Amino acid sequence: MAPNEEGGEEALLPDLPRGPLDAYRARASFSWKELALFWEGEDMLRLKKSIFSALESDPVFARPDRGLPVERLRELTFLRCRRLLQLDVLRADALLRNPLQLLALITGLGMYDWSLAAKAFLHAFVFGSAIFNSGSERHLKYIPKIFNMEIFGCFALTELSHGSNTKAVRTTAHYDPATEEFVLHSPDFEAAKFWIGNMGKTATHAVVFAQLCVPGGQCHGLHPFLVQIRDPKTLLPMPGVMVGDIGEKLGQNGLDNGFAMFHKVRIPRQDLLNRTGDVTPEGTYVTRFQDSRQRFGASLGGLSAGRVCIVGMAVANLKLAVCIALRFSATRRQFGPADGEEVPVLEYQLQQWRLLPYLAAAYALDHFSKSLFVDLVALQRGLYQDNQSARQAELGREVHALASAGKPLASWTAQRGIQECREACGGHGYLAVNRLGDLRNDNDPNCTYEGDNNVLLQQTSNFLLALLDREGEPGGARFESPLKSVDFLAAYPALLSRRFAAASLQDCLDSAVPLAAYEWLVCYLLRESHQKLAREKRAGGSDFDARNNSQAYCCRPLALAFLELTVLRRFHQHTRQPGVPPPLRAVLRRLSALYGLWSLSQHSALLYRGGYFSGERAGKMLEDAILELCSQLKDDAVALVDVLAPPDFVLDSPIGRADGQLYRNLWGAVLQQPGVLERPSWWPEFAASKPAAGAASSKL
Amino acid sequence: MAPNEEGGEEALLPDLPRGPLDAYRARASFSWKELALFWEGEDMLRLKKSIFSALESDPVFARPDRGLPVERLRELTFLRCRRLLQLDVLRADALLRNPLQLLALITGLGMYDWSLAAKAFLHAFVFGSAIFNSGSERHLKYIPKIFNMEIFGCFALTELSHGSNTKAVRTTAHYDPATEEFVLHSPDFEAAKFWIGNMGKTATHAVVFAQLCVPGGQCHGLHPFLVQIRDPKTLLPMPGVMVGDIGEKLGQNGLDNGFAMFHKVRIPRQDLLNRTGDVTPEGTYVTRFQDSRQRFGASLGGLSAGRVCIVGMAVANLKLAVCIALRFSATRRQFGPADGEEVPVLEYQLQQWRLLPYLAAAYALDHFSKSLFVDLVALQRGLYQDNQSARQAELGREVHALASAGKPLASWTAQRGIQECREACGGHGYLAVNRLGDLRNDNDPNCTYEGDNNVLLQQTSNFLLALLDREGEPGGARFESPLKSVDFLAAYPALLSRRFAAASLQDCLDSAVPLAAYEWLVCYLLRESHQKLAREKRAGGSDFDARNNSQAYCCRPLALAFLELTVLRRFHQHTRQPGVPPPLRAVLRRLSALYGLWSLSQHSALLYRGGYFSGERAGKMLEDAILELCSQLKDDAVALVDVLAPPDFVLDSPIGRADGQLYRNLWGAVLQQPGVLERPSWWPEFAASKPAAGAASSKL
Repeated sequence: MAPNEEGGEEALLPDLPRGPLDAYRARASFSWKELALFWEGEDMLRLKKSIFSALESDPVFARPDRGLPVERLRELTFLRCRRLLQLDVLRADALLRNPLQLLALITGLGMYDWSLAAKAFLHAFVFGSAIFNSGSERHLKYIPKIFNMEIFGCFALTELSHGSNTKAVRTTAHYDPATEEFVLHSPDFEAAKFWIGNMGKTATHAVVFAQLCVPGGQCHGLHPFLVQIRDPKTLLPMPGVMVGDIGEKLGQNGLDNGFAMFHKVRIPRQDLLNRTGDVTPEGTYVTRFQDSRQRFGASLGGLSAGRVCIVGMAVANLKLAVCIALRFSATRRQFGPADGEEVPVLEYQLQQWRLLPYLAAAYALDHFSKSLFVDLVALQRGLYQDNQSARQAELGREVHALASAGKPLASWTAQRGIQECREACGGHGYLAVNRLGDLRNDNDPNCTYEGDNNVLLQQTSNFLLALLDREGEPGGARFESPLKSVDFLAAYPALLSRRFAAASLQDCLDSAVPLAAYEWLVCYLLRESHQKLAREKRAGGSDFDARNNSQAYCCRPLALAFLELTVLRRFHQHTRQPGVPPPLRAVLRRLSALYGLWSLSQHSALLYRGGYFSGERAGKMLEDAILELCSQLKDDAVALVDVLAPPDFVLDSPIGRADGQLYRNLWGAVLQQPGVLERPSWWPEFAASKPAAGAASSKL
Repeated sequence: MAPNEEGGEEALLPDLPRGPLDAYRARASFSWKELALFWEGEDMLRLKKSIFSALESDPVFARPDRGLPVERLRELTFLRCRRLLQLDVLRADALLRNPLQLLALITGLGMYDWSLAAKAFLHAFVFGSAIFNSGSERHLKYIPKIFNMEIFGCFALTELSHGSNTKAVRTTAHYDPATEEFVLHSPDFEAAKFWIGNMGKTATHAVVFAQLCVPGGQCHGLHPFLVQIRDPKTLLPMPGVMVGDIGEKLGQNGLDNGFAMFHKVRIPRQDLLNRTGDVTPEGTYVTRFQDSRQRFGASLGGLSAGRVCIVGMAVANLKLAVCIALRFSATRRQFGPADGEEVPVLEYQLQQWRLLPYLAAAYALDHFSKSLFVDLVALQRGLYQDNQSARQAELGREVHALASAGKPLASWTAQRGIQECREACGGHGYLAVNRLGDLRNDNDPNCTYEGDNNVLLQQTSNFLLALLDREGEPGGARFESPLKSVDFLAAYPALLSRRFAAASLQDCLDSAVPLAAYEWLVCYLLRESHQKLAREKRAGGSDFDARNNSQAYCCRPLALAFLELTVLRRFHQHTRQPGVPPPLRAVLRRLSALYGLWSLSQHSALLYRGGYFSGERAGKMLEDAILELCSQLKDDAVALVDVLAPPDFVLDSPIGRADGQLYRNLWGAVLQQPGVLERPSWWPEFAASKPAAGAASSKL
């Protein structure tokens, strides 16, 4: 399909256009093509190229669609989603062969437009895998209907008054043995399903989570039901279903989020997705799980997959933002030495310090995202094979812990990074056509859906604290996990006596330094959290209160520091593996060191407070090392973003184009906008009717 | 005009509707009406009420206008601006009598809509005062034309390729003695005036900054010229002027920012705004200033007024955001003790810790904004009276320093606060109708225009460092300034030996504690910056390089810490003045302590590094004090936002309404949106044409 795919590597990584960025590209310490090949691998490069070429070569994906009304954005996104299904981009079988392709597909589509990626992903994968994972043989018939679009799906869990506390959703499904049907009902509008992607205008079917009740009124908790909400022939709602669009959002307005209320809607017994629990024709509830918590966990297990994907989605946004801001900074000149000409703003230490750590974070988190996705796939394989081993259970807990703090870390890093990039591009960053606003708006929900960041972090701190409890009193306790993310805790609490050792600035320019500091920091915060919880309980607080009063300065930073450590360790190891081509080692190690030191510097107060740092020197060395690495990396910055940047068509930002023709591209884009030079349609209002000052009798 | 203005105080502060917020209101430690009267004063409350009533009672200001196309937003904003001129809201004379009314007017209008406030403000005040301040008698004739809208104005300084470095703008104005005209010319599109508010569609006249050159080619630097760019009868461009709209922005899309290129446009000699420099009919340049830097400073002096106003604008945004988030948090219930009902999320310590410091910051910065505005007025009075005293010059430098760091501090605090509020409202915060997105998008330019925050901060650090140099070597040196913001430096460097003294948590709950710490911190950063600059120069760096390499960890935090100290000191003194009614003292002191400790906690690393803190206890006490103040303030939070909140019509956020009917208001707003329950217009596209999976021959 990709027209110029023949020709192999030449076509795979075409030369970049010459222009004002040449100066920086010439100064780069490595070949961007060599790094691209090492970083992505030829298969992934080929896949992304084919996705991007498919989009660019098909008019339905033509840019720009900024500034269109919401209704039109939703139509465009639907038409594009249908086109993706036609192009067979979403073929599950192919993706199952190499699951990393799924991540590349989601982030590739997302780099083009998150509304489209979300719409397609929710329909084909979230809806699809909910049926596949929560249902049984009798539901498999629906899967092909997804891919030929006989039906269009959504996943309906949250309600107007319940998001984080999903267990408390109030939609009910009462079983009626007389007709062998479930009766779905929303008690009131506060129980309306709300925020459901694809439900607003498109979905014909929904996986609806409701409280399952059997005759006699006994309820067995939340279960998923497959419910038809619209007629596929007319897109009119089914009887008893009040379904609508929740309206304009801060971003992702091509996606139709919706709501639905059910008025005694009857569905056949078979449409209960019965993997975790079922009801006999006579109305007896049967399950293979002992307690309902376990069942609930299994029925929502699919969510952790979503969180792992969101890590990759946030990273994609961060990549796009740093590409735009760094190409801008390398071509925007402002001020300069008294006499000489103006210098690129990238030459200013402050600009480097604002942007290069986010470039390093984009690489570190990108690697983490891919490696965590691989771990997720291993976990899912075990689930499909119904692996009951203790190791499988451990793996589940560990992936859950990493995903539950990985999503907050990645989404917040992207949120702050995009904001910094917006500001670093000055006024031009505030112009919609340069896309930094869309990136900020489209990234924002990553902080909220699939679990609010602050709520999710508790999953990770609880995981770590549970290890401590399980291992009994510290000292000689054994810590081990399948992915080895907690193995360093074997040295707890001895690790707490470790101290900052770097003797010189040079020593500091190595990610081993922040790595060692982070191991100490996590142990310190683990102990702080453990002690704080104990104090709260001794003070007579309930577990509920004790946990709530230990988040702000203990459990929350514990979870974040643990994830920063994990991200850093994986990046550190990746940059030191023998497979790294020698010409790439220096730049990758600098990125790894910068990410580690910069992240760590946010915790300097704790390093001092806990005695890991002492004296002025340690803190200053950390700062000097960050600045030194920034200056070492600034000449590589443009080549580093060349590796991350999608084609200009996908990046879609005049100030971020690969040719570096900042002003020509921006000027051209501005002049392309409709009516740019026209007088306003309302000109007679100006010319005709003047305010006789104070005419309106009423004065303020 | 305000219909229900009779009735005095009752009408001035009407009771709030009863509802779910009653529980918190009943627990408040003070009367919100008493605080409102103390905080705003009756006159200001009356003015705001009359502005808000004027807006609410006039259909042209009717809500909602969210989701309208840019073109329509610009028309609406123009019609509203014209209506404001008719209502005579912008009467300069009244405002000159009590200048604080101007601030109340800008922020009051801005709370309704920033595009309208900006459009009116740029026309009536920025354009108007540029003529008034930079021109002479011969230009006064233009002033009345502004208020009866014979002309519509804009202020054209920045160009496509020059924003921060305004001195380098490239538009030229060559004088032609033959016709006694100036010839305005844009050498190329990179010199196009760009980002100019009101220029896109509306402005008929512009104050254009250009390089003034006289016959013989000698240039005398940047001067302002009054240039007609459109015909007021037709809104068609004047010959030789290419003027257009720069298009959609991240926010403030009711305001038409524009660009203009001049092709040898001739204007009469008299239209040079000649306060700082003039040209004789024969073409001789005359000025009352010796050197061009001085002249340039005078001609741009007006800008510092803009920065002071932006402090107030950012504070207004922060106020609106905390009102929405805290009313939401008091009514949104999620999770709860094992058995009992769900609790309001405001009861969670983490939610308090996320939001209450921003509530405290809103109060602290609101007071700073008003007091700085009063200082600005004193400065301007001196300028009008052509006061040449040394004190006037000192005052000018001090106000410039406070405004140059006050704008960054206020705009960044608002930016982060709005983001935290958005996230603290979860998914519902991401719904456009709840307005947190508009607040974020409309606040964003406060970080950029009138001087990029990071660039501006250097003005403040340079001011402080210059004091140090001027006072010669530290020790016994005299520091004094008209507003006393630097007088504490008299104790420099002795202050550096001060140490954290609080003995107990109770001691810490007083803003005197962070105040003392901040005085130490500013001295520490002043010394660090001074030494760093010296090192850089010794290392052979130019002044330019030395300054650039001292920003990230020295001069930048120095400027911010100095402003935080100033804001805290003014708030601390305000809450301790005898005029504070006794029932209000406790809550105001808690706010002052919380703001101070929370701001200070961002600098904990430096407090440890420099030895002000030592041992674990100090840092933990700071954290415990912040959490203790949060829990002391959470029952007052709703009453505190009742004081800050504008009427529901102006706040315009269903989840933030005064009646606290969170879900009814949100559900109602969602159902009000056009086409909410309609099937999409493109339904046949779904029903008719299905993708035969893989139909498109091309596969990925």
